[in-house]
Amino acid sequence: MKKLSVDLGERSYPIYIGQDLLSSANLFSEVIRSSQVMIVSNTTVASLYLTQLSESLIEYQPRSYLIPDGESFKNLSVMQDIVTQLLENKFSRNACLIALGGGVIGDITGFAAACYQRGIKYIQIPTTLLAQVDSSVGGKTAVNHALGKNMIGAFHQPAAVFSDSKALNTLPDRELVAGLAEVIKYGLIRDEAFFVWLEENIEGLIARDTACLEYAIERSCINKAEVVARDETEQGQRALLNFGHTFGHAVETGLNYRGWLHGEAVGLGMLMAADLSCRSGWITEDKLQRIGSILQKTGLPLSLPDELEYADMRGLMSVDKKARDGELFLVLLKDIGDAFVTSQFDEKLLQFTVEHFTSKASGD
Amino acid sequence: MKKLSVDLGERSYPIYIGQDLLSSANLFSEVIRSSQVMIVSNTTVASLYLTQLSESLIEYQPRSYLIPDGESFKNLSVMQDIVTQLLENKFSRNACLIALGGGVIGDITGFAAACYQRGIKYIQIPTTLLAQVDSSVGGKTAVNHALGKNMIGAFHQPAAVFSDSKALNTLPDRELVAGLAEVIKYGLIRDEAFFVWLEENIEGLIARDTACLEYAIERSCINKAEVVARDETEQGQRALLNFGHTFGHAVETGLNYRGWLHGEAVGLGMLMAADLSCRSGWITEDKLQRIGSILQKTGLPLSLPDELEYADMRGLMSVDKKARDGELFLVLLKDIGDAFVTSQFDEKLLQFTVEHFTSKASGD
Repeated sequence: MKKLSVDLGERSYPIYIGQDLLSSANLFSEVIRSSQVMIVSNTTVASLYLTQLSESLIEYQPRSYLIPDGESFKNLSVMQDIVTQLLENKFSRNACLIALGGGVIGDITGFAAACYQRGIKYIQIPTTLLAQVDSSVGGKTAVNHALGKNMIGAFHQPAAVFSDSKALNTLPDRELVAGLAEVIKYGLIRDEAFFVWLEENIEGLIARDTACLEYAIERSCINKAEVVARDETEQGQRALLNFGHTFGHAVETGLNYRGWLHGEAVGLGMLMAADLSCRSGWITEDKLQRIGSILQKTGLPLSLPDELEYADMRGLMSVDKKARDGELFLVLLKDIGDAFVTSQFDEKLLQFTVEHFTSKASGD
Repeated sequence: MKKLSVDLGERSYPIYIGQDLLSSANLFSEVIRSSQVMIVSNTTVASLYLTQLSESLIEYQPRSYLIPDGESFKNLSVMQDIVTQLLENKFSRNACLIALGGGVIGDITGFAAACYQRGIKYIQIPTTLLAQVDSSVGGKTAVNHALGKNMIGAFHQPAAVFSDSKALNTLPDRELVAGLAEVIKYGLIRDEAFFVWLEENIEGLIARDTACLEYAIERSCINKAEVVARDETEQGQRALLNFGHTFGHAVETGLNYRGWLHGEAVGLGMLMAADLSCRSGWITEDKLQRIGSILQKTGLPLSLPDELEYADMRGLMSVDKKARDGELFLVLLKDIGDAFVTSQFDEKLLQFTVEHFTSKASGD
């Protein structure tokens, strides 16, 4: 087992990475300082892991609250239901929530913990690769609004993160690969050596080699923890974590969040951002090719869905959260391992990039 | 005009106290750093002050969103409506909300600001005495849940507080007096000299003497700001601000928040806490009498409503937010100007105190 630390002063917390963490009663006792514990999960994940986790927590006689599986349940009404459960069980400000699941469960549980009596403790137990390397680390919590994703939320750091690599055994291939997109992101934005390692080990990761996966999770979490420690509430450097996301969000929104997984949209978004970086003269053709090559090996979709053309994409990109007073900011690459935020890109080149990835173009 | 400061590092903010602040366009320009401004108010307050405020903010072309007047609208659904307005108007993370009204408006607007895109700026313009001396300072925001008041919320400090003493001219007498209960609280818990000043000037305050009111607001805010600066998220000393509130909340909950104003319940709660402090030998009879005397002069109700007897009160007190693992903590007095938190009180004396204030007893 590895133990990393996210350094945020009095809000610092450990990330544990290893096998069978769900069964480590001892580790939980180190973190939980309350007799009131409630596990929040979804029905799919609960059927696989809830019994095991509940047994490790037996001394707390944990309650559990299950919500159906799916992004559409990440809303304010379900958050209120969680609070209702807490109140009906007379949970105090000293209580502890446990999020057992992927990003949806982590985000909504974290937000409920952020708001319940103005903030209680919570623990993240991410069960998808995406959540293990991204959403469960950094304290971003939120629910969706009908008019926008993650529009209602809070920065609320967990008390600990338990990333159990065994939980990935039950993850569908497609979700594993979607998670790899975010792993590759860390290499691209700030860790060239990790990118080189990924180029050499991408097959092992896809084959779910445990050692490979644990190293990739660890290195991703180290990178994310460093960024978050420097910029907890996304005033500056944390924005680099959104590499690929402005393009990706446009795809997700354009499809009404149906059909593509978040990691898939981000994978294509990263390639588009790299393409624009290359057209702008910031990275070489050779480096763009290496990025394309590793993404291709994962099997991630690398062209835009039929429905989306340049005009759609450009319109959707301008309502991105990172747009300020109508000006669009993009995270682009100066090099592999070196990203930056800029609004000083050439609109014409952006159009060429988007058009290059429309399915018509890629079909040529 | 007076300018105080709440010292919270990078979250520090000014409190302005004076007349005609609603018309000080210059002051607003110092604080607002966005072209997107939305005023949230209720229909009663808006009919009195919205035009005046909108004119001072003319350069921002502010939007406004009005909710009906009343505590029952301080809920998650109305908070979501505010977010809908922000999204429909394409407000960015750089936008600024303005809460124009009493505690309900301040709490729900502050909570919407805390959650919108994980936190945007907001300004408090409290229009009741209670909000000017209490809820608008300190960053506690919340909405109610059907099972408990203020159960869903956040600590989110405002960018500035504008306390316009002229706004109090339109405040009903009963609300003014309810606000005075919280003013007297600051004297009792930590500022003996202020309590002595209040004893000498209580008639002036009730007669709405402007100089008296502004001094009382200033001194109250200084006290609250000091406490908040030392304990932003209520881990310790901030709990002293809840003097009278455990008794008071029991009254409010017992009446389903109907009939009594918050300040009225707190006024009686303070007298009950003082009574228990005296029975416990912590303050003298003489001091208890001084506390009873100033409260009597305000005209605040000083006996429990008919519906509430000892058993009801004791049961309601034990579900207080400050109860930890079933143990009841109370804020009591060691002296006028010196409060402390304790669970080491005599249950029998607590019963005597509550029974002393039941309407049957006081009617004797």
